Amino acid sequence: MHTERSKSMDQLMHRKSDVNLQILNPDGTPASGRRFHVDQTSHRFLFGCGAFDSVALMKTQDPEKKAFLAERMNKWLALFNYGTLPFYWGRYEPAEGTTAYPETMAAARWLQENGVRVKGHPLCWHTACAPWLLQYSNEEILRRQLERIRRDVSLYKGVVDMWDVINEVVIMPVFDRYDNAITRICRELGRIRLVKEVFAAAKETNPDATLLINDFNTSVSYEILLEGLLEAGVPVSAIGIQSHQHQGYWGLEKLNNVLERFSRFGLPIHFSENTLVSGEIMPAHIVDLNDWQVDTWPSTLDGEERQAREITEMYSVLFAHPLVEAVTTWDFNDGCWLNAPSGFVYMDNREKPSYYALQKLIHGEWETHNVVNTDENGYITFTGFKGNYTVSDGNASAVFTLDTPVTMKLTLDR
Amino acid sequence: MHTERSKSMDQLMHRKSDVNLQILNPDGTPASGRRFHVDQTSHRFLFGCGAFDSVALMKTQDPEKKAFLAERMNKWLALFNYGTLPFYWGRYEPAEGTTAYPETMAAARWLQENGVRVKGHPLCWHTACAPWLLQYSNEEILRRQLERIRRDVSLYKGVVDMWDVINEVVIMPVFDRYDNAITRICRELGRIRLVKEVFAAAKETNPDATLLINDFNTSVSYEILLEGLLEAGVPVSAIGIQSHQHQGYWGLEKLNNVLERFSRFGLPIHFSENTLVSGEIMPAHIVDLNDWQVDTWPSTLDGEERQAREITEMYSVLFAHPLVEAVTTWDFNDGCWLNAPSGFVYMDNREKPSYYALQKLIHGEWETHNVVNTDENGYITFTGFKGNYTVSDGNASAVFTLDTPVTMKLTLDR
Repeated sequence: MHTERSKSMDQLMHRKSDVNLQILNPDGTPASGRRFHVDQTSHRFLFGCGAFDSVALMKTQDPEKKAFLAERMNKWLALFNYGTLPFYWGRYEPAEGTTAYPETMAAARWLQENGVRVKGHPLCWHTACAPWLLQYSNEEILRRQLERIRRDVSLYKGVVDMWDVINEVVIMPVFDRYDNAITRICRELGRIRLVKEVFAAAKETNPDATLLINDFNTSVSYEILLEGLLEAGVPVSAIGIQSHQHQGYWGLEKLNNVLERFSRFGLPIHFSENTLVSGEIMPAHIVDLNDWQVDTWPSTLDGEERQAREITEMYSVLFAHPLVEAVTTWDFNDGCWLNAPSGFVYMDNREKPSYYALQKLIHGEWETHNVVNTDENGYITFTGFKGNYTVSDGNASAVFTLDTPVTMKLTLDR
Repeated sequence: MHTERSKSMDQLMHRKSDVNLQILNPDGTPASGRRFHVDQTSHRFLFGCGAFDSVALMKTQDPEKKAFLAERMNKWLALFNYGTLPFYWGRYEPAEGTTAYPETMAAARWLQENGVRVKGHPLCWHTACAPWLLQYSNEEILRRQLERIRRDVSLYKGVVDMWDVINEVVIMPVFDRYDNAITRICRELGRIRLVKEVFAAAKETNPDATLLINDFNTSVSYEILLEGLLEAGVPVSAIGIQSHQHQGYWGLEKLNNVLERFSRFGLPIHFSENTLVSGEIMPAHIVDLNDWQVDTWPSTLDGEERQAREITEMYSVLFAHPLVEAVTTWDFNDGCWLNAPSGFVYMDNREKPSYYALQKLIHGEWETHNVVNTDENGYITFTGFKGNYTVSDGNASAVFTLDTPVTMKLTLDR
């Protein structure tokens, strides 16, 4: 019984709420003494994953590819309620004025229709930046950057209301791998000025959007940057933390240390880009993960068992932390970024152990499914994980959302 | 001839100025066709050193100790025009209300009378903090910290007008070696809030003072902290950079990299705590220099030659950089902090090669001494290093200050 389990799971109380429901028949009389299934149909917590293949799915004309990607995305939808879509400027707008709007918007709408919340990633970043910006002066680059933000945040409003506004600011002005327009303007303006400007452009365009800053740097540098931004009044909705662990699982000590340090701001925390591989670990001496170029990076039996175990542990810690409100695994399938065995499914879409391990949490332990009997006045009372629910006796049904402790009347549809 | 040398020293032009002097007799007639010695008597650039022994010199009643410290401080005065005095709260005020004011003020006055500019170090720091603060609530600690700043900045005004307002903020809230009052309040307020408060207290008490922030952390964390502080309007007069090189000389690459990165703010830069040792180098694996506890740390012949060479190179780079306006070597004599052979003199006050190497720069290469003849109207023209000057023919003399290019009349005293 779920209610019994929950007594030993106090560390998840913040994920749950009490509900006192009076179930009514369509004529307003209490549905008393009846047996109902109460089933959670979605989570308030954001269980996310990169959803880049939904764009490819929308775009492809090849029936075979379409079927393959549809199969993949169906497995995706069976796990997640939150997806990240690509807005890398250089790829989104390869020539000035020519954008990937049609397929990206189609993907965002398709995800939304399937109950998925969508985040756009990112609006400003030095990597994968548009090369055509380099012809302009810094002043013009900044103008175009802000214009781009206003354009896209406006165009996608109502479909994409969550944005990684700016990515990897700690390294941005000192990034020296290659010349790019964003490093140029960040060096001139300074980090805080640039972040201020890009957030202001996003905020004025969609005041209700969730606006994130995102970084792989989890050192004191990022903390200090956040202090400076908050002191400067930048409207950061949530702190994005990348956790690409190609070089091995952080482990509980680092994970708890990062959570403790970034909790100080009292802002929601999003683990925005998580990677745990099911193969060999990348050597520790690699500083920029992009320097690790391999033709193949096989998934191994041992590695798959390890990946599943680490995902279970890490997600459990994050789900238990009161400020974490989203966890996104970066790659859904193997062979994406860096060719790593970093997915929940193999390249051919077969599920890996990590898929089932996460399913067991999201749609098992952390999802509420009860069978309850109404009392003589039609009341049921229970504690469940926050999210959307259906109440049904197999014939009549009703839906409700559980968020804060609530007493409500629920009228059946028949 | 100095004027010839200067042609090949263009990188020091910002340290010099042109002057066009008309030298007049007391009766107002031009001192024409006469031969004068023009001698620089002090530098505008701040060549500094820890001057803690001046406090001991003021305090001691022991004639032998007094003579020994006087000999040491005379050698100190022969090199430097800028001294750092200790204001570590725990030592300055060992019991609440009982301070080292008498001997500290006596030392500051004595230095000032000897033409030395004095900096107080530091007003707020987690290390060497007053243990009696720990009995108070965070609110009371902050109140006392600000009160302490107002008290001391006010008491010493006119004698000490330069302060390390706060020290080592990057590590301050995460410092975990021992519990202390300042880490407590920094953790609660955040770095930027605390810095804002302590600078505001210093600024309101002495609006014309030079107010520094100082750190040993020269990473991107300190850069980002400075960005945040400047964006928050904190009145930082100059950036203090520590460079304790017990683990080996930074070398030109790191030195230039640090200068380049911290120049971005356009603020003056003070190398506030420089150390180069003349003995064995501390192993690289030591993270907190204070962990290296040795009974003796001998100065070696090779080490002394190396120290002199490194001091020459490092001071030359810093003096050539347009934003650097002060360089302070931390220890004047060996056997101070960490027992290191870090001084310009041995423990027995004999000069080491580094003493003569620095003297050769400060009072040799970088000091202007000319012999010139006035023309028929009493004019002389030359380019000299910025600072104070005397003009003298061995009988009559006059003084002037060279700062910006200037044309002036100078009246002799006889």
